[in-house]
Amino acid sequence: MCELLGMSANVPTDICFSFKGLRERGGRTGPHKDGWGVAFYENKGVCTFKDPQPSYESEIARLISDYPIKSKAVVAHVRQANRGRVSLENTHPFSRELWGRNWTYAHNGQLSGYADLPTERFTPVGTTDSERAFCYLLSELDKRYPNRPTSRKAAFRFVAKKTGVLRKLGVFNMLLSDGEYMLAYCTTKLHWITRRAPFGMARLSDIDVDIDFDKETTPNDVVTIIATEPLTCNEQWHKMQPGESQLFKYGEAL
Amino acid sequence: MCELLGMSANVPTDICFSFKGLRERGGRTGPHKDGWGVAFYENKGVCTFKDPQPSYESEIARLISDYPIKSKAVVAHVRQANRGRVSLENTHPFSRELWGRNWTYAHNGQLSGYADLPTERFTPVGTTDSERAFCYLLSELDKRYPNRPTSRKAAFRFVAKKTGVLRKLGVFNMLLSDGEYMLAYCTTKLHWITRRAPFGMARLSDIDVDIDFDKETTPNDVVTIIATEPLTCNEQWHKMQPGESQLFKYGEAL
Repeated sequence: MCELLGMSANVPTDICFSFKGLRERGGRTGPHKDGWGVAFYENKGVCTFKDPQPSYESEIARLISDYPIKSKAVVAHVRQANRGRVSLENTHPFSRELWGRNWTYAHNGQLSGYADLPTERFTPVGTTDSERAFCYLLSELDKRYPNRPTSRKAAFRFVAKKTGVLRKLGVFNMLLSDGEYMLAYCTTKLHWITRRAPFGMARLSDIDVDIDFDKETTPNDVVTIIATEPLTCNEQWHKMQPGESQLFKYGEAL
Repeated sequence: MCELLGMSANVPTDICFSFKGLRERGGRTGPHKDGWGVAFYENKGVCTFKDPQPSYESEIARLISDYPIKSKAVVAHVRQANRGRVSLENTHPFSRELWGRNWTYAHNGQLSGYADLPTERFTPVGTTDSERAFCYLLSELDKRYPNRPTSRKAAFRFVAKKTGVLRKLGVFNMLLSDGEYMLAYCTTKLHWITRRAPFGMARLSDIDVDIDFDKETTPNDVVTIIATEPLTCNEQWHKMQPGESQLFKYGEAL
């Protein structure tokens, strides 16, 4: 399978600490060695680093785990291939433009019978079930809202409903963001935690790294991290239930 | 204005040498300090690094100039902003999916009266003349070929014709690629060079760096570099003429 990592924050925040943990799972503490990727938003712009190499060995992943790129919304993924060979075009996260915004998505799971999902004008580039499901969700959005909707929150709620179709096809844990909102959907495994003042110490599970968030933050910061498995061993993460979706905006659960 | 850099090659080739030269122009030997970006194709997949910081000072740009990412098609850009503020969403290259392929584009120049260019289903995310022109070209392609064309070469020729509309709006030097083909269009300034056996020494103009391509290549390699201004001082570059377009595939001019 794969592992997901997402961040939603009310101030530009780096993801070095969490990404350090995720990176270990891409070939060292986890079997997800078939590529990795991470998308950082800066307002409406997005920059996506991806690489079909194991994150644990990747020079670019090393840079990202050390170099603080500040963002309010991040979507990251380490891959263990099932559908679709190991290649750059099959590496998550995937992106498309809709209504003049960049949409970014990553999936953990495995679907059957996905080849018939209608995708209209969003054509998959690669051969994964994941990208096809993404194109399906965007095409449903596009059909429901031929013009830019006044409420993007309502549009995300609509996506959350449409994931019901995908859930019937198999395991579908997902992150989807447009840079402001972040939707997490769970069918088997997804956890999240919101950190806010008073901040404390956190310790990664996968590598011997501690952080004192009190030294890295200001009192008004609100930062939510979403991950397949909790990344820290000394904090209480919220475990999502099968069929549960959760929308975030600027760090807050809506 | 800005500077463009493109590569088309018949074998996966790194662009470290050329990018080292371009990077200097992003704030040191040139005034193009308002962001930079580079897109690397690996078959149909593409990875785009971009940053609204000056390339000369960027940690990520430093990594890219030192770390050999191998590709057959690369589109790069350093920006000096005119239309659209300095921000990630206004940073080139821009990308969109059409017919299940990733299209990547960068522009050097400045357009007037671009706000009325029709872009149909391709909506600009940022506010540059450049991205709007890109969306216009893709929407024209999409109208001309509602289904994936049998000849992408013909599709690129069609784009080259459509650039005539943009040329009337101002300065429009451009690179456009789908990972196999690379189209260069010139209204004022664009140069290219094809390197093949027997390979020789090359010396960058912007920084004291030499390379012996004979040591870096095999006898069958064909590598074309396209740049706003020649990047080397000891080679003969082909200067494009106003209104001239040139299509490349796997390093060869077609």
